[in-house]
Amino acid sequence: MELLEKRIQEDGVVKEGNVLKVDSFLNHQIDIGLMNEIGKEFKRIFADTEVTKILTIEASGIAIAAIVAQYFDVPVVFAKKSQSINLDGSVYSTRIESFTHKRVYDVIVSRKYLSSEDKVLVVDDFLANGCAVDGLIDLINESGATLQGVGIIIEKGFQDGGKRLRERGIRVESLAIVDEMDHKTGRIVFRH
Amino acid sequence: MELLEKRIQEDGVVKEGNVLKVDSFLNHQIDIGLMNEIGKEFKRIFADTEVTKILTIEASGIAIAAIVAQYFDVPVVFAKKSQSINLDGSVYSTRIESFTHKRVYDVIVSRKYLSSEDKVLVVDDFLANGCAVDGLIDLINESGATLQGVGIIIEKGFQDGGKRLRERGIRVESLAIVDEMDHKTGRIVFRH
Repeated sequence: MELLEKRIQEDGVVKEGNVLKVDSFLNHQIDIGLMNEIGKEFKRIFADTEVTKILTIEASGIAIAAIVAQYFDVPVVFAKKSQSINLDGSVYSTRIESFTHKRVYDVIVSRKYLSSEDKVLVVDDFLANGCAVDGLIDLINESGATLQGVGIIIEKGFQDGGKRLRERGIRVESLAIVDEMDHKTGRIVFRH
Repeated sequence: MELLEKRIQEDGVVKEGNVLKVDSFLNHQIDIGLMNEIGKEFKRIFADTEVTKILTIEASGIAIAAIVAQYFDVPVVFAKKSQSINLDGSVYSTRIESFTHKRVYDVIVSRKYLSSEDKVLVVDDFLANGCAVDGLIDLINESGATLQGVGIIIEKGFQDGGKRLRERGIRVESLAIVDEMDHKTGRIVFRH
């Protein structure tokens, strides 16, 4: 998506340790005009796909999920990071390892909001090693719902999350795939 | 807002300890059609108010902030709950006590995304004791920005957050104010 790649080139900041900061327009301050273009693009890409729920994970996935959901006219469900796992059987749960925050989260979705009838589009802002998406897929599988695809704003193509998911036969659509980046020069190379 | 009150009556669940669960449409699963009506209503209420930024706090404020921002055509900034306070001077920071989660969070906003030029509308899903809004106002004050008002979806009128903020001269607009609720009968009484 050209508009997005241009914005990443202009306002993204490459930091040591393969960190791409897009805080100024994507996940601390949010450019809602850009988000709407992203929402339209996901709708265009998944136009032929039946979707009954948009699933994401708190916190930074919520904004894009809310905007995307408008174009599909379906509810958003966001998985919650839980301090203490709820043991009363009312939730689907899994564990997700966060490399950014160097910790493991229990992640839950209420059984009320995902069922075997649902056809789910997963959306998130970043895909790197794929742990967050793996966790969301665990929750979908536990619910018996159907995973229709995964929509990602920025994929780090030099990490293996996207490759692993696609090898499992999952449809992953990333609006920008970064194949190389260099914190010394600020250079960012996209896959085309 | 009649549509919202009707939805709360139908789908809200009153739990012991003055808990109002609106998980099915507001803060776990999100009804995006309703969110858009809420966004339009905030724009109608604050039509004459100059707004350059929508400010909220992760996680459940993000969806409403993203939808509301479309109607004001301005960026969203969401304050982040931080595990470890950043001491390099690049952020505004405050502490917020969460009664729901019984803990204290450090909350930050990057100095890059709030400045003395900004005219800020704070939005959040709930207002109860007002600690989250107090914290967001601390961050606004630290930045020198102007607080233009506070837009809340559901205010618990029997807790003192709204009263305290209004007594400080802050414009607080809540789309539904619950004055009484009873977990035994499920009865919810709105202020009109």
